[in-house]
Amino acid sequence: MLPLLTRIDHVGIACRDLDAAIGRYQATFGLEVVSLEVNSEQGVREAMLGVGAGLPGVGYVQLLEPLSADTPVGRFLARRGEGLHHVGYGVADISAALAAIGGTGIRLLDERPRHGSMGASIAFLHPADLGGVLTELVQAAGPA
Amino acid sequence: MLPLLTRIDHVGIACRDLDAAIGRYQATFGLEVVSLEVNSEQGVREAMLGVGAGLPGVGYVQLLEPLSADTPVGRFLARRGEGLHHVGYGVADISAALAAIGGTGIRLLDERPRHGSMGASIAFLHPADLGGVLTELVQAAGPA
Repeated sequence: MLPLLTRIDHVGIACRDLDAAIGRYQATFGLEVVSLEVNSEQGVREAMLGVGAGLPGVGYVQLLEPLSADTPVGRFLARRGEGLHHVGYGVADISAALAAIGGTGIRLLDERPRHGSMGASIAFLHPADLGGVLTELVQAAGPA
Repeated sequence: MLPLLTRIDHVGIACRDLDAAIGRYQATFGLEVVSLEVNSEQGVREAMLGVGAGLPGVGYVQLLEPLSADTPVGRFLARRGEGLHHVGYGVADISAALAAIGGTGIRLLDERPRHGSMGASIAFLHPADLGGVLTELVQAAGPA
């Protein structure tokens, strides 16, 4: 049986200037941008950079620039400054995962999956129930 | 050629009560403790919990409880509270990685590798040069 969390899908990093942050990760680590998109629902412009490209279990650095100060990432930056914002774990079946996790008493910020990067289905769990860690579940796009 | 960063090795999470944090990750996600150790040099008691155990590209949730208030993780907790503390990326050769990254102008908190979890060789990079993200390199123990 697959474990509930299949991998560390990504680390989400809040930044003030997406292009500068991309440049920093390219110059320092040679990471390449796999996806660049605007997610209006979440109020961010974001880039996914592949870690370990070509190896099994690839993960991503997700760089997040807020579309305005009045967004979750905008408020995060005002409160805490740039830095680690959340962690995303891969799951095989996000609806089943949400039901299982919700059943343990953890509050779900998203009762139902919504649209994430690169066509994934995602949902966030409440950081107050997970030791201050904003935690995301990610079911990657593609054949089930 | 291998990429410089081969995978997301772990997310490091600061907590006040290690046993409670372990219990939370076990109950919520079914994660199991792979390693439990005290690292006096870093001033932490820590647990590694396997994500995606048995799958390729396994990563870890690293839970960190400070040994005292006067340690890096103790000061982090006093300043920011519980939550995401750092991210660790796998590298194939940590000495080569430090030389390459130092050459780009990023400041190294560790000029030479030191002892990390489960016998790994690790080194930290300066968060001020990486958008506020404390970043660790990890060369896992074992045959080169």
